[in-house]
Amino acid sequence: MIELTDIDHVGIAVSDLDEAIATYERLLGVAPTHRERVEDQGVEEVLFAVGSSSIQLLGALGPETPVGRSLEKRGPGVHHVAYRVDDVAAALEHLRTEGARLVDDSPRSGSRNTLIAFVHPVAMEGVLVELVQER
Amino acid sequence: MIELTDIDHVGIAVSDLDEAIATYERLLGVAPTHRERVEDQGVEEVLFAVGSSSIQLLGALGPETPVGRSLEKRGPGVHHVAYRVDDVAAALEHLRTEGARLVDDSPRSGSRNTLIAFVHPVAMEGVLVELVQER
Repeated sequence: MIELTDIDHVGIAVSDLDEAIATYERLLGVAPTHRERVEDQGVEEVLFAVGSSSIQLLGALGPETPVGRSLEKRGPGVHHVAYRVDDVAAALEHLRTEGARLVDDSPRSGSRNTLIAFVHPVAMEGVLVELVQER
Repeated sequence: MIELTDIDHVGIAVSDLDEAIATYERLLGVAPTHRERVEDQGVEEVLFAVGSSSIQLLGALGPETPVGRSLEKRGPGVHHVAYRVDDVAAALEHLRTEGARLVDDSPRSGSRNTLIAFVHPVAMEGVLVELVQER
């Protein structure tokens, strides 16, 4: 089993990051808790805390990035759902055993000094899933 | 402000509910915590607990339902994101004041004896948002 301990965040692809931040700030009445440019994922992310989870707004660093291509194809909206796990490597091993299609064969560094891996949407009912391990 | 206290659930539209349940049970290694037919929304929902939130698998009760049309148009995947609030009516009032486009003008009954309202995707960066108040 994967043992998901929480929803870490819901990742939302947005066309204009600053405009999206302004919208969420205005509607939620709170400021973002984190902003980070993640070069190897081709995104800039901004987090709004919601309980023990976060809303993650994702701006693409260019059109030829995963989020850039998603925006081109589907427009803004939910890009992925991230679940927190205690051990990403063990979770990947379990998924591999179950024959689930993976995007990442092994854990890699994510934002906020986390360890992450993505699972292919075909494995989980059309949802791109990210597994997040805090360290 | 809306004051979101937690992510209540991520709603995932699936083509075959029983098959999706089997997939999630197998990968997550846990059984669903709730199953309910919600006639007025045209769905059957199944919840898997994840920390203080849930994954909600949504099967359409027919093609001419919101989830049925979503499946026809976009296939399976994230259908909406639900945030917990203490007072849905107050949240709607705030959103109305901010000019946000709503799906529901006033709170209505949801599954699990909750009070809910949907906010239009154009208001929140392409994400259909559900507000959930426990009672």
